[in-house]
Amino acid sequence: MNAVAVESRLQARLDALAAVTEPGEGVTRPSFGPLEREAHALVSDWAREDGARVETDAAGNTVLIYGEGEPYLLLGSHLDTVPAGGRFDGTVGVLAGMEAAAQVAGELELGVRVVAFSAEEGARFGRPCLGSELATGASPAGLLDRLRDAAGDSINDVARATGLTPEACEPWLRAPAVAAYLEVHIEQGLVLEHERVRLGVVDVIAGADRLAIELTGYAQHSGTTPMAGRRDALAAAAEIVLDVERVGREARHGVATIGRLDVGPNSPTTVPGSVRAVVDVRDVDAGRQRASVEAVRAAIDAVAERRGTPATVTSLASRAPVMLSAWPRRALTAACADAQLPYRVLPSGAGHDAAVVAHTAPAALLFVPTPNGRSHAPDEACRTEDIAAACVVLAGALRRLDDDAAGAAALPDPEQEG
Amino acid sequence: MNAVAVESRLQARLDALAAVTEPGEGVTRPSFGPLEREAHALVSDWAREDGARVETDAAGNTVLIYGEGEPYLLLGSHLDTVPAGGRFDGTVGVLAGMEAAAQVAGELELGVRVVAFSAEEGARFGRPCLGSELATGASPAGLLDRLRDAAGDSINDVARATGLTPEACEPWLRAPAVAAYLEVHIEQGLVLEHERVRLGVVDVIAGADRLAIELTGYAQHSGTTPMAGRRDALAAAAEIVLDVERVGREARHGVATIGRLDVGPNSPTTVPGSVRAVVDVRDVDAGRQRASVEAVRAAIDAVAERRGTPATVTSLASRAPVMLSAWPRRALTAACADAQLPYRVLPSGAGHDAAVVAHTAPAALLFVPTPNGRSHAPDEACRTEDIAAACVVLAGALRRLDDDAAGAAALPDPEQEG
Repeated sequence: MNAVAVESRLQARLDALAAVTEPGEGVTRPSFGPLEREAHALVSDWAREDGARVETDAAGNTVLIYGEGEPYLLLGSHLDTVPAGGRFDGTVGVLAGMEAAAQVAGELELGVRVVAFSAEEGARFGRPCLGSELATGASPAGLLDRLRDAAGDSINDVARATGLTPEACEPWLRAPAVAAYLEVHIEQGLVLEHERVRLGVVDVIAGADRLAIELTGYAQHSGTTPMAGRRDALAAAAEIVLDVERVGREARHGVATIGRLDVGPNSPTTVPGSVRAVVDVRDVDAGRQRASVEAVRAAIDAVAERRGTPATVTSLASRAPVMLSAWPRRALTAACADAQLPYRVLPSGAGHDAAVVAHTAPAALLFVPTPNGRSHAPDEACRTEDIAAACVVLAGALRRLDDDAAGAAALPDPEQEG
Repeated sequence: MNAVAVESRLQARLDALAAVTEPGEGVTRPSFGPLEREAHALVSDWAREDGARVETDAAGNTVLIYGEGEPYLLLGSHLDTVPAGGRFDGTVGVLAGMEAAAQVAGELELGVRVVAFSAEEGARFGRPCLGSELATGASPAGLLDRLRDAAGDSINDVARATGLTPEACEPWLRAPAVAAYLEVHIEQGLVLEHERVRLGVVDVIAGADRLAIELTGYAQHSGTTPMAGRRDALAAAAEIVLDVERVGREARHGVATIGRLDVGPNSPTTVPGSVRAVVDVRDVDAGRQRASVEAVRAAIDAVAERRGTPATVTSLASRAPVMLSAWPRRALTAACADAQLPYRVLPSGAGHDAAVVAHTAPAALLFVPTPNGRSHAPDEACRTEDIAAACVVLAGALRRLDDDAAGAAALPDPEQEG
C-alpha cells in the first residue's frame, strides 16, 4: 500500500472506532464493557480481511496473528477509553501496529502479532493496565474481586457480563516467545509540538501512585447547623485538593492531581457528610515519587485530624518508573533515521501497557504528537500523516529487529545493551 | 382519640410513608416525582377514612377538607424529601395537621383544611417551596421551564410525567379565604434539645440565597500536563469551597455552605475541566444576608480571574428573611400554655412553606425537637410523643383562632397586631 492508501485506511478505521461509544461528548468505551468488546470485534474483522488469524485470551486481550511462529515480534496498544475521552488514545497504537504488521509479515523470519489489550485506562476501576497485567502475569492476587467501579461491580462481575473470565487468564506475554514489544501512542503532552518533531522515542515511563481517599464528615441541614458545629467532608476535601496541588508543584518534574471527587449526599441543603476522591501522583524518579506520596498522605491525615473528618487512604496502584529496553528502542531510532523523520528521545508522563510489558519482554514506545497536548478529552487530536509516519518507522524497526534476531544465535540481552 | 391512640396512629403512618422511597439509605422521594405522588395518594386515603374530602391543584398540592366553608384555617407541610433524607422532615407537619384537623373540625365555625404541598425541598431543581409558591402565585415567570434537574429535565417535564401541569396552577392560597396557616415542622437544629423544651414557636424564618456556579477549566491528561500549565477547575472550586466556609464563619448568626459539587469529566487521570456547584447562604438579617452573598460572589470572581478558570454565577433563589404573623403565633403560644407544655420562641435557619404562605395569609410555625439536630440525613430522628404534643397545641390553637374569628366582624389584621 502506498502512503496515501495507508492514510486513507487509517482515517476510515479511526472514524469507525470513534462511532463505537456511549452517547454524549467524545468517545466513551468503558474498560471490560460491551463497547470495548465491540471495538475488539471490529479490529478482529479488519485483521481477518488482511489474512490474519485472531485469538482472544480469557481477559479479553485480542491477538491478531499476521505471521505465525515463535519467537514473534509483538505490536499493540488498547481500545478502551476514559469517560468522554478522545478517539486516538490507544486506538492509534492498535491501528498503526496492524498497518505495519500487514506490510512486513510476509518478509520476516520472526512471527508478527498485534495485541489489543483490554482495560488499559484506569478510570473505571481506579487501576490502569489490567489487560496487560493479566497477559504478563503481573496482576496482584484478589484484585479482580477487590476493585469495583462506581456501580459497585467488581472487575470479575463486569467482565463476566461480556463473556470474559479474567481470573482464568493464563499469562502468555513473555520472552523468549515474545522477542520484543513495540507500542505507538499519542504523546498526550506538548514536547513534540514545541520541538516541531514528528516522532518521539520514549526512554522512561513515569511511575504512578493512585490513592483512594474516603472522608467521613457529618451530614446535617445546611440552614440550621451553625458553622462552628460542622464536620464538613467537602471543606476537608477542598483543603486536600489544594495540598495535593501544592505537592505536585513542589515535585518539579512530577505531577499530583485529584481528577475524581464525589460528594455525599451531594444535596444543596445538606452539609456534605462524605467525600470519595482519587489522587494521582506521577514522577520519572522513584525517590521523588515516594516522597510526594508521603507528603500527600501526611496532608490528608493533618486535615482529617484538625477537622474531625476521619480519612481512610487506600493504595489502588503503585508503579515505579520503568526504563524501557535499549534494543528495541535503538531499532526505532534507527528506523526514524532511515526514513529521515526527525525524532527526539523523551520521558512519558502517562502510563502505558509498554511499561507493564517491559517487565517480561523487551519493550519500546513511540510517540506521535498531540496537537495542543490535549488528551482524555473529546477534542483530543492527532494528525493522520503522523500516524502514517509512525507506521513507516514501525515497519522499519520490525525489519531491523528481525535482522538482529536472524544474525544472533540467541536474541541479544537488552540489559547488556547500551 | 386519646393520646396513646394518636401516638400509635402517627407511628403507623410515619412507618408507611417511610416505605415510599427509592432504594438505598434513608428516604428519597424526589420533588414532583412518582413517589411524591404516591405519598400524596396515601395521605389522601387516610384523610378520606376520617371523612375528609380531597382536592388536588394542578401543581400537585393536595388539600384535605376536614371542615367545609370559608374562611378556613389551613394546616400543612410537604411530603417530598432530599436524596437520602429522613422520615420526619415535612411528613410530621402533614400528619400532625391531619390529627388536629380530625379532632376539631366538627367543633369550629371556620372551615378546616390540611395541605400537603408538593416540591418543598430544593434539592432536585435547586429552588425550594415550588408547590407553595404556585399555590400562592409567587412563582416567577418562566421558572417551570428554566429550572432543570440533574438529568436536564425541567420542572414542567418532570411534573407532566406524573399527570401534573404546574404551569396551569391557579393561585388559591390567600387571605381572606385562608384565615390563617399553621405548620408543624421538625426543628432540624439543637436549640430545643439544648434548652430541654418540648416545642418551639418561630418568630422569623431565615432568608436564603442559592447560587449556581459553573467553573470552566481545561481537561487534560493528568500524567502529561505539567502543574504550571494547568487550569484545574476542581482546584479553583476547592478555593471557593473554603472561601464560602469563611464567609459563613464571619457572618456570626448566618451560614454559608456548598453542599453540592459535581466534577467533569470526573476521571482519576484527567485534570478536571469543569465543576458545577451550588452555594447556600442563609441569615435572619436581610442586610447581613446580602453582604454574605456579595462576599461569596467576589471570592468566586477573584479565584476565577487568578486561575484562568472562568466562572458563571446564577441566582437560583433569593428569599429575604420572613417575620411570621403575630396573631396565629399568639394562638400557638397560648395553646402551649393551656397544655402546660414548655416552649420557647426562636428563629428558623431552614426555609419552610410557612415563609411563602406568610406573604398571602397569616402564617405561624411550630417546631418539635430534632434529637442530635440531625436532618436531611437517613438517621434524622423525632420523638412521637413530641409530635403528639404538637397535635394538642395545634388543636388548641385552631380553637383559639376560631374563637377570635367568631368574636370579630372582620378577622384581625395581623400587621396591626403586637
